[in-house]
Amino acid sequence: MTSTKHNGLVDDHLFVIIGGTGDLTRRKLLPALYHLSEQGHLADRCRLLAVARTGDFDDDRYRLWAREALAAADVRIDEAASASCCDRLHFHRLGQGNSADYQALAARIAAIETEHHLPGNRLLNLAIPPGAFPSTIAGLAQAGLTESPGWTRIVVEKPFGSDLASARRLNRLIHQHFDESQTYRIDHYLGKDTVQNLLSFRFSNAIFESLWNRDRVESIQITMAEDIGIEGRGPFYDRVGALRDIVQNHLVQLLCVTAMELPPALEAAFVRDEKAKVLRSIPPLDPENIVFGQYAGGSANGETFSAYLEEDGIPPDSLTETFVAIRLHIDNWRWQGVPFYLRTGKRLPTRATYIVVNFRCPVLTCFEPFTCDIQCNRMVITLQPDEGFDLHFNVKAPRQPFRLERERLRFRYKDAFGDLPDAYETLLLDIMRGEQTFFVRADEVELAWRIFDPLLADPPHVHAYPAATWGPDAANSLLAQGAWYDQPRRT
Amino acid sequence: MTSTKHNGLVDDHLFVIIGGTGDLTRRKLLPALYHLSEQGHLADRCRLLAVARTGDFDDDRYRLWAREALAAADVRIDEAASASCCDRLHFHRLGQGNSADYQALAARIAAIETEHHLPGNRLLNLAIPPGAFPSTIAGLAQAGLTESPGWTRIVVEKPFGSDLASARRLNRLIHQHFDESQTYRIDHYLGKDTVQNLLSFRFSNAIFESLWNRDRVESIQITMAEDIGIEGRGPFYDRVGALRDIVQNHLVQLLCVTAMELPPALEAAFVRDEKAKVLRSIPPLDPENIVFGQYAGGSANGETFSAYLEEDGIPPDSLTETFVAIRLHIDNWRWQGVPFYLRTGKRLPTRATYIVVNFRCPVLTCFEPFTCDIQCNRMVITLQPDEGFDLHFNVKAPRQPFRLERERLRFRYKDAFGDLPDAYETLLLDIMRGEQTFFVRADEVELAWRIFDPLLADPPHVHAYPAATWGPDAANSLLAQGAWYDQPRRT
Repeated sequence: MTSTKHNGLVDDHLFVIIGGTGDLTRRKLLPALYHLSEQGHLADRCRLLAVARTGDFDDDRYRLWAREALAAADVRIDEAASASCCDRLHFHRLGQGNSADYQALAARIAAIETEHHLPGNRLLNLAIPPGAFPSTIAGLAQAGLTESPGWTRIVVEKPFGSDLASARRLNRLIHQHFDESQTYRIDHYLGKDTVQNLLSFRFSNAIFESLWNRDRVESIQITMAEDIGIEGRGPFYDRVGALRDIVQNHLVQLLCVTAMELPPALEAAFVRDEKAKVLRSIPPLDPENIVFGQYAGGSANGETFSAYLEEDGIPPDSLTETFVAIRLHIDNWRWQGVPFYLRTGKRLPTRATYIVVNFRCPVLTCFEPFTCDIQCNRMVITLQPDEGFDLHFNVKAPRQPFRLERERLRFRYKDAFGDLPDAYETLLLDIMRGEQTFFVRADEVELAWRIFDPLLADPPHVHAYPAATWGPDAANSLLAQGAWYDQPRRT
Repeated sequence: MTSTKHNGLVDDHLFVIIGGTGDLTRRKLLPALYHLSEQGHLADRCRLLAVARTGDFDDDRYRLWAREALAAADVRIDEAASASCCDRLHFHRLGQGNSADYQALAARIAAIETEHHLPGNRLLNLAIPPGAFPSTIAGLAQAGLTESPGWTRIVVEKPFGSDLASARRLNRLIHQHFDESQTYRIDHYLGKDTVQNLLSFRFSNAIFESLWNRDRVESIQITMAEDIGIEGRGPFYDRVGALRDIVQNHLVQLLCVTAMELPPALEAAFVRDEKAKVLRSIPPLDPENIVFGQYAGGSANGETFSAYLEEDGIPPDSLTETFVAIRLHIDNWRWQGVPFYLRTGKRLPTRATYIVVNFRCPVLTCFEPFTCDIQCNRMVITLQPDEGFDLHFNVKAPRQPFRLERERLRFRYKDAFGDLPDAYETLLLDIMRGEQTFFVRADEVELAWRIFDPLLADPPHVHAYPAATWGPDAANSLLAQGAWYDQPRRT
């Protein structure tokens, strides 16, 4: 059960994808596995087994399908690397998923392990809708696949429930067969290099860590803006809404990474303990501090957008929120009195995810007799796109009369490092290595739902906002001072 | 005696340059006056009177000479602006400078003031060698030119003495005829926009001010590096040396602006009080903390450089220092225990003036189990060339394995503002407005000499260093920890 963490290579294992012909596999998992293979991160004997209920594939045909999937995902393919990756692939048709089907899967797994001299390490990636979790886990368990001669790890994707009760049921289901140490819950935001770097940034830069508290920070804003609408996902989205789709998972995780205390070491248990402590310190939300919105029609740059209620598959009286803005507090020594603002929405003016740390203002009187409009320092950490850091500061404009201007100290990842890897690449490699730091622990999921459960039971009024704007006016009234920092639209 | 500060225009006045055909006038004063005129900073009736002992000029011929001087100084001349500026010029030949000569100068000044309806405001700029100060000031006083119906201001250039005693004599001489409030001592470094901005930067950016103390700062380095040698100024330089030429004035002023407390307002008295307090808080230098150097021969990039002792006009046994490195402390609440390092030299690898604030290091243990080479945060404020700010910080490199890299948050003035004005432009306008903040006060001059007087009396051993290197090895031993930050040579 040991893993060879941090040594650049992973244990020999069988990577099983349940849902091996699905959308997630095609768009994310296969490209990530290809890149890991290309970079030499996979041990020679690692094999990949795609499992699906249906599909007219044998191994060879699946390998062809996988190559086409890579090409379709715009992966720049090196022929030798592609062959080396795709040759690892196997396919198994599960059928209806009855007991015999899972027995057959177990036999197939054993056969591959024997043929390729694998030690029995298994990674079970459930790339399937959450409704299929119970039957799948039960089937795996009945066939003895929740245990193995080596390590067994299970990977699940969000949503981790749709409220506190369902999240608890899901956790119980998993824990019937797997330890938490075997469980990898993917919130792909935690796999982004920019989010992982947020921790490194805070803890390796003494000057920022010393500013990162209520004495120096006036407020923090976390925005995840999408310019797209629901893109044909109408019936799905209408059941879910922005709170469940974005806030409870992605924004909460960004909040935790931004606000958490320093762990004694960058190890999974320590890091996740600190994140859970942040969630525990959030008092119940005040309904006055929540704004829901739903996009109406609108236009921008010569393009016209339909209202949410006019989209395909949306009931004409839907009250599903496509925009959420929340003001909350973290009642601990570091953050007491500092408002945190979370905001997400569809059909906003741009696509951007960023964290804004507004620092307290300087004493202005020392600039007398000049009257000058000093702006407070602000750190903007952009997670996507154009990832980087912008520290807004005041600088004297040259010449007379005396005048301060706001300028930026800038850093852009792409200037230093080129393109960043996809989150799945990072996360799959972590799973293979048994590194859980950037996966969501069961208690985090439940603590996050605990915050939002009252809102789900008694949702606030939904304000309409014109498409291609920054949401309803009510969102601005949430702010104790200042304004939302709206990232300009990229041109 | 009032001035119309900060209103963009200056009082009508007569700007008298004693030394009106000299090098400083040609290279600095006339170009600065031209630019001020072009920008509309001079009131319509302002006149300029160049005074020289000799020179075969009348007003018209001097105007031609001035135009040629502007062209030679690479000033981009707008014909109309040039005409408007040069038409303000007058010339007066002082002759031997006896009593009658100064009476004639007084008559000429009165005549210009009458002709141009000037209110008697006079700015007396002594663009002459310090040896000529006593006789000139005496001559002006005898002719009644130290008083006028309006305001009278006197401008002197460094050196302000060559040790504490001579500086006191010079201050006494000036104060016999002028108040300190009428006296403008130019250290042109204080006129640089980047130096003036250092104050604005500190006091308008709360996050940096909160870091600017012994709790957060490990050490501060101030370097003024020249790549040139003595460029034909041998006999002059050999009498002066780097301590008097650079350290006592420019470096000390940069030290004061970097270390001073916040003044209650950006007014001359307050700012200069705070600078004087810094100087008062510097305990006597420990001889162990001073390194003198003199450049030997050397070569770099295919160029060969002579040793200082081989330069024209240098005695072969000269012990004049061309390099100084000093470690000093400021014993006040803000800085106790933080070493300040000053360094200057000729024939170093590059030309650059910059201030490096080394912040304390973060706690490294939180990065376990990874071993990583965290570098401490550092702010590099470059005053010339390529003026700007670089905040060195640690950032996680993308992909595995975990690795921190040092990158920079960058700001460059030229990106935001284009070319910066010459220091003289800023300083002359300040003088016209009666704004003394960025001029050196009498007590500052004496306090600075007080620090270095023991060194002048008992100079340390002079270490040879190869030309085009960063000085003698002994300079590195001064550092309590870390290394000198050597700005890379610009290519």
